[in-house]
Amino acid sequence: MRIPKSVEAVIVEFEKLPGIGPKTAERLTYHLLNAPKEYAAQLASAVVDLKEKTTICETCFNITEVNPCEICSAEGRDKSAIMIVEEPLDVSALEKSRAYRGLYHILGGCIAPLQGIGPEHLRIKELLNRLKKGAIKEIILATNPSVEGESTAMYLQKLISPLGIKITRIARGLPVGADLEYADEVTLSRAIEGRMEY
Amino acid sequence: MRIPKSVEAVIVEFEKLPGIGPKTAERLTYHLLNAPKEYAAQLASAVVDLKEKTTICETCFNITEVNPCEICSAEGRDKSAIMIVEEPLDVSALEKSRAYRGLYHILGGCIAPLQGIGPEHLRIKELLNRLKKGAIKEIILATNPSVEGESTAMYLQKLISPLGIKITRIARGLPVGADLEYADEVTLSRAIEGRMEY
Repeated sequence: MRIPKSVEAVIVEFEKLPGIGPKTAERLTYHLLNAPKEYAAQLASAVVDLKEKTTICETCFNITEVNPCEICSAEGRDKSAIMIVEEPLDVSALEKSRAYRGLYHILGGCIAPLQGIGPEHLRIKELLNRLKKGAIKEIILATNPSVEGESTAMYLQKLISPLGIKITRIARGLPVGADLEYADEVTLSRAIEGRMEY
Repeated sequence: MRIPKSVEAVIVEFEKLPGIGPKTAERLTYHLLNAPKEYAAQLASAVVDLKEKTTICETCFNITEVNPCEICSAEGRDKSAIMIVEEPLDVSALEKSRAYRGLYHILGGCIAPLQGIGPEHLRIKELLNRLKKGAIKEIILATNPSVEGESTAMYLQKLISPLGIKITRIARGLPVGADLEYADEVTLSRAIEGRMEY
């Protein structure tokens, strides 16, 4: 095997990314070889900037370039609601929906005993500190509708309810555009339980 | 949508890679955010090196750091055989098999009239110049077993045969580990046509 060292090096680095196997890493690398030199330079500098310019918001723990983050410090947002999510990627997805104008709190995962992740590994203490300041009127639990996400939501509900704050959970039901016929029974039962007046 | 600019920049660059959609680009970027800083630096410098250190071999047109490339200048290789392939990635795959010890010639694609790629866009003139030097005794056509690859092989066969050089084509048949039952009819008919004494 006589791949030039500098080609091999990029393949090795790409392979470390999630979901990128040896074949895809090779394909991406050879694509870069054929791409204009400017593109490779842009990719490289963007990756370096990513690590140098970003930090974690000390209030909501989202990824940010300014501290507190743009969402926490925004004028127009509702500062009486906190939506609790697992990961920064969830914030990015929720913001795209434009359906929510409050604040966020990123847990940094969910309670998963099988992977050894307990409540002490998540940013729950920091959440309680935020709630103690008193300005929060609603907590929206937006952990994933998975087994771990549901039990994390339940754990937080028990923990927060003594504080007398309104707690809601994002709706689980049929995704828009889905076919009722092909929906699984758990989703269907959630959709029926969560029905609203029409 | 309030994604930090430096995060958005990496997502945009990743999205330009083949087979990477917006969701995957986001996932890769957030993976980088969580990865150690050294990894991002390594990836960035490997990508820059890739473009700065590599060039195209002036003999076989493979990607290389030295010119002529390591294969063309290797002592132990059979300099009387040239295997003709479409892309540098093909060389990398063939070298892994360790079944061939001759030289290569990279066409830079295959004849594809629908995409406007004619013989004049490939490195066929350069191939003929190599053959005119007289040292070559066998040409192995290793273009892909696709419609375009086959017609490119046929075109080259017609072009080279007047030179009196032995021309072979890599075998098409059942891939090792495959199930005869699920093979398509074209592959099966090729496997039967190409049968060898046992």
